[in-house]
Amino acid sequence: MAQLVNPDLVRERSRASFDVEKLTNVLYGGPDGVKRKRRIESLALMDPDYAHEDLNYLSREEQYVTMLKKSLMAAKKAKELGLIVKDMDDYMTRCGLDYRAIAMNLHCTMFTITLQQQGDERQRAKWLKLAENFSILGSYLQTEMGHGTFLRGLETTATYDPSSQEFVVHSPTLTATKWWPGGLGLTVTHGVVMAQLYTQGQCMGPHMFIMQLRSLENHKPLPGITVGDIGPKYGANDGDNGFVRFDQVRIPRDNMLMRFAQVAEDGTYSMVLDPRLTYGTMVNMRVQLTERSNTSLARAVTIAIRYSCVRRQSELTPGEPEPQILDYQTQQYKLFPHLAAAYGFWFTVQNLEAHYERVNSKLQEGDTSGLQELHALTAGLKAYTTLEAHQGIEECRLACGGHGYSHASGLVYLLTSQAVTVTGEGETTVMLLQLARYLVKCYAKSQAGAKLPSTVSYLQMVQSAAVSGGTIRDISSFDILTEAYQHRAARLVKVAAEGVRFKVTSEGQSEAEAWNNSLVSLVKCAEAHSQFFVVKTFVEAVRTLDVDDSIRAVLTTLCQLYALHGICEHAGDFLQDGYLTGPDLQSARSEMCSLLSKVRSDAVPLVDAFDFPDQILQSVLGRYDGRVYEHLYEWAKKSPLNKSEVHESYYKYLQPFLQKNRAKL
Amino acid sequence: MAQLVNPDLVRERSRASFDVEKLTNVLYGGPDGVKRKRRIESLALMDPDYAHEDLNYLSREEQYVTMLKKSLMAAKKAKELGLIVKDMDDYMTRCGLDYRAIAMNLHCTMFTITLQQQGDERQRAKWLKLAENFSILGSYLQTEMGHGTFLRGLETTATYDPSSQEFVVHSPTLTATKWWPGGLGLTVTHGVVMAQLYTQGQCMGPHMFIMQLRSLENHKPLPGITVGDIGPKYGANDGDNGFVRFDQVRIPRDNMLMRFAQVAEDGTYSMVLDPRLTYGTMVNMRVQLTERSNTSLARAVTIAIRYSCVRRQSELTPGEPEPQILDYQTQQYKLFPHLAAAYGFWFTVQNLEAHYERVNSKLQEGDTSGLQELHALTAGLKAYTTLEAHQGIEECRLACGGHGYSHASGLVYLLTSQAVTVTGEGETTVMLLQLARYLVKCYAKSQAGAKLPSTVSYLQMVQSAAVSGGTIRDISSFDILTEAYQHRAARLVKVAAEGVRFKVTSEGQSEAEAWNNSLVSLVKCAEAHSQFFVVKTFVEAVRTLDVDDSIRAVLTTLCQLYALHGICEHAGDFLQDGYLTGPDLQSARSEMCSLLSKVRSDAVPLVDAFDFPDQILQSVLGRYDGRVYEHLYEWAKKSPLNKSEVHESYYKYLQPFLQKNRAKL
Repeated sequence: MAQLVNPDLVRERSRASFDVEKLTNVLYGGPDGVKRKRRIESLALMDPDYAHEDLNYLSREEQYVTMLKKSLMAAKKAKELGLIVKDMDDYMTRCGLDYRAIAMNLHCTMFTITLQQQGDERQRAKWLKLAENFSILGSYLQTEMGHGTFLRGLETTATYDPSSQEFVVHSPTLTATKWWPGGLGLTVTHGVVMAQLYTQGQCMGPHMFIMQLRSLENHKPLPGITVGDIGPKYGANDGDNGFVRFDQVRIPRDNMLMRFAQVAEDGTYSMVLDPRLTYGTMVNMRVQLTERSNTSLARAVTIAIRYSCVRRQSELTPGEPEPQILDYQTQQYKLFPHLAAAYGFWFTVQNLEAHYERVNSKLQEGDTSGLQELHALTAGLKAYTTLEAHQGIEECRLACGGHGYSHASGLVYLLTSQAVTVTGEGETTVMLLQLARYLVKCYAKSQAGAKLPSTVSYLQMVQSAAVSGGTIRDISSFDILTEAYQHRAARLVKVAAEGVRFKVTSEGQSEAEAWNNSLVSLVKCAEAHSQFFVVKTFVEAVRTLDVDDSIRAVLTTLCQLYALHGICEHAGDFLQDGYLTGPDLQSARSEMCSLLSKVRSDAVPLVDAFDFPDQILQSVLGRYDGRVYEHLYEWAKKSPLNKSEVHESYYKYLQPFLQKNRAKL
Repeated sequence: MAQLVNPDLVRERSRASFDVEKLTNVLYGGPDGVKRKRRIESLALMDPDYAHEDLNYLSREEQYVTMLKKSLMAAKKAKELGLIVKDMDDYMTRCGLDYRAIAMNLHCTMFTITLQQQGDERQRAKWLKLAENFSILGSYLQTEMGHGTFLRGLETTATYDPSSQEFVVHSPTLTATKWWPGGLGLTVTHGVVMAQLYTQGQCMGPHMFIMQLRSLENHKPLPGITVGDIGPKYGANDGDNGFVRFDQVRIPRDNMLMRFAQVAEDGTYSMVLDPRLTYGTMVNMRVQLTERSNTSLARAVTIAIRYSCVRRQSELTPGEPEPQILDYQTQQYKLFPHLAAAYGFWFTVQNLEAHYERVNSKLQEGDTSGLQELHALTAGLKAYTTLEAHQGIEECRLACGGHGYSHASGLVYLLTSQAVTVTGEGETTVMLLQLARYLVKCYAKSQAGAKLPSTVSYLQMVQSAAVSGGTIRDISSFDILTEAYQHRAARLVKVAAEGVRFKVTSEGQSEAEAWNNSLVSLVKCAEAHSQFFVVKTFVEAVRTLDVDDSIRAVLTTLCQLYALHGICEHAGDFLQDGYLTGPDLQSARSEMCSLLSKVRSDAVPLVDAFDFPDQILQSVLGRYDGRVYEHLYEWAKKSPLNKSEVHESYYKYLQPFLQKNRAKL
């Protein structure tokens, strides 16, 4: 088979400075992890039932039906295969060719998790069984047309009527319409609905209710319920993201999820458990989005780097053959920092997951310490990594020139899917400001002499940050890089916090005004903190991983590149207070350019190590065998517009038009 | 009607500090220009024949047919209306709701222009008449599967056979397949084809040939021609961008466009005119793309700013009603710099158009002086403005939260269309490097004491750039801002030019290696030059426009915001050599934040002044009347997935699945 691989890629692979399989082991938790991953993948990808149509050729409606069919089949097969829960999840995701299959995605995640976490024992016994058996299908109904992140602003009401022991669920305004939930448009029968609970004349804030939306006999919406699809979107068009309006819909008292708060038969409201115990779910969701962003970015760089080795264009040296476009410094500059980021984020996700496990196991014992720190950290990293990945994917797409615009590239799908994660589950700015609020609070505490949790303990050192005073340092040493990011983050937190304070004490602004007038610098400090966390994590991983020298060498290069590129991109932050000098920046830039040529020779092996099968990449440009052009031509020929030699619209429109004009000559 | 407008927008408009209509006059060249624009718009938009389906609900094939039908109708009507040429173009564009209608776009532009410019008198008499009468439809076939910007690499050949006095046009490889031309897939009958001309055994480089592709009787591809659609894309899916392969296709000698070079009957090749005389077309195309990017950005900020005044969310002051999201400093920071850029680019386009007219009128007289400067300038501005607009539109989309992801926003269409202009007609990096090559050459000339053309004459002053030495300046004064950008551009050109030199003279690299190893800094200097040009143009426009004080005041604010925002974004460039100091940057940041609140009260009037009718914006979020939610709901209900209460896929897939699972319980 070797001769069928594009010779440029063969050459790229032959000169790898390290053992690709060993690096893959590092990424997937050792040889057993890789084996497990590949087994699940082959179950999903080698199954002839999943050899399906290219979704890009289908209408939106056909895409929906195709993915619905596949999701249902996957649910059935996963059980038959007797997979353990984690593998079942993985298997079903892969059957949906990873991130598609929105119709059933929320059923398997948020719907089931909410029942699990917020239902009391009796409710779990009833509803979880139905959900896990797929006798009902559910969605998670929180966002409304008029409200996203701001939960207190949600308008849907659930008013308790003690006379009938029912809640009356209602959409009092147009903007109260539930909007966006996946699977809601056409698919699900049930939903967990967030609504403002009213009882005994008082609003008790948002609570969750389980509601049946459609008849189990004929799938018709139940009385008082108007439900539908919200229309075509930027991406995710196989999904039936939906809307629903409630017109005084009555549900039994039992349908309020009662683990944390209860409404008694007479309408008395009582809190039972600290609702923060459920925050683990939200935190975990953000860790998952960080992971997903990282994977999507890694796929995009895989595609763009392989293609850039196959594509030859223009000339570097007059008279010589056209070079691979990856040999241009500008192409390396576009792609390699994102390759480095993909590795950095990979280790960040591993770190976050471990951190989450520690905090969550304490939560299970009722201990909420550590939750606030983790909550802030994941909010910031969710925002930072989803946006960086989004921009990285778009740069990869643009770096593929015209062919990056075609759906054949696979990059369009990655881009439009990634865009969901930037806005969904906590909009970037809102998330960064949650982290900023925590950082400002910690800064104030540290000023008052309190000890801070580990991820923010560096804020105590703000005052003592040394200025180099003009000596040029070894800018790419791990210590210097980590310290530079630490100093930048600490300084920007200080600037933001003191800015808010100054506006209150010296300019007479209210706390609220001062906060709003400082939002730009608050966002900036949260970004700096998040990037510092990635740098620190990346450095620690490279230092401590149990790997051979060749792998540590290549990871060191990537880590330095990630950090130096960030310094060049945000140079003002490092130069403003003289922490780095002009000559430091100059050496950072030239060191960064040297690292680009260093990464060049390992670029293809580095993306091969991510181990994405072609069926998952779904990219003509990023194929493992590099046979781009043959497959691009084959792909285009299958375009539905090519089904006949002369398109039928010719006879109706073009022919009469042309003939009439010719007659006039 | 006034009471039907969202009251928030009514209030926004009531407090405008200037007369909106007067600013609209400034943008469209006076009251007559506005009148003309509105007349053309109303002809196209009020015509009931154009009250058409929402393309977002249609399949790709339906989109193509719809736009084909509309384009043909527009061609017919434009003639009937007896419009002058410029108005006819405008009218047809508007009938395509501006940028759509790709099937016939290249016919009206590149196809006709190429015949006009490169055909000799006899060829023009024959082909132009057919094209202008729409008896044939043509496309412009340059890009191949394997080659974009690098024309010398094109592989299609046209080999002259003196025995039959024909050219044999051939695609010798798969990568020689012509790829991407608009309208080529299904629509056009003819094309102007760029191919390597071979005669008397010698390759004379790329030349243009006119070729018939499909039969005028039945539209079937002619013998030896394989033609089709290249498949679904990121955007522009109403267009049939196509591919074509030539298998030894013979065309008469007369079909070579012969104005600049000729092949005699015996195969003798001769140059007739300086081919640079045609470069005006390419330059003009880049000016047009700059204009189009600017318009698209202006539309995106119109949508995002209006929506941000209608959308209310969260809280600024505890207990108060939810504020308009435009009141958050972060939202202003996301949107207002792009609003400022849209105004800055608008004046830049006016400047460029005037510059083009001057150079082109000299070209008509055979004078190519000034061409090189304009060519470099437009290459840089094409790259800079298309990318800035692209990123700006995406920021606008993200700033609209979840609803920005829906096609209802209109922002998705703007984004995916703008993405075409970033890559098409000269990829960003390639364009910037064309400018960089010119700048480096000019720098060397100025070092040798030569006088430079006006747009680059500042390079002569590099050496004398003063460093402030720590005094804090009035950072928002026009003079200081212009000088800062001039200094940055001059310094970065110097750094890049001397970097290349140093690598050759001190590191022993070849010219080619040194150039490649300097690409990152070369791109950087070209960006800095382009941005300096925009700042300078914006400042001059604001200073010299014949407008009243209120308009000059608001334009001054926007111009300062554009320039200060750029300084904050690229702070490292200004700080690195100490030209600006840390305290300067601090005052730039705080001045920028003050300008944000200053723009706030005029934001809606400023976008109203762009005067985009709702039918052109095609955005539920950006409607002039601000009735966003009612129309979002109506829009969603029309989604084809909602055509029946229960989707037909239920009976086939969902019902059996659910019933089977329930039976198992």
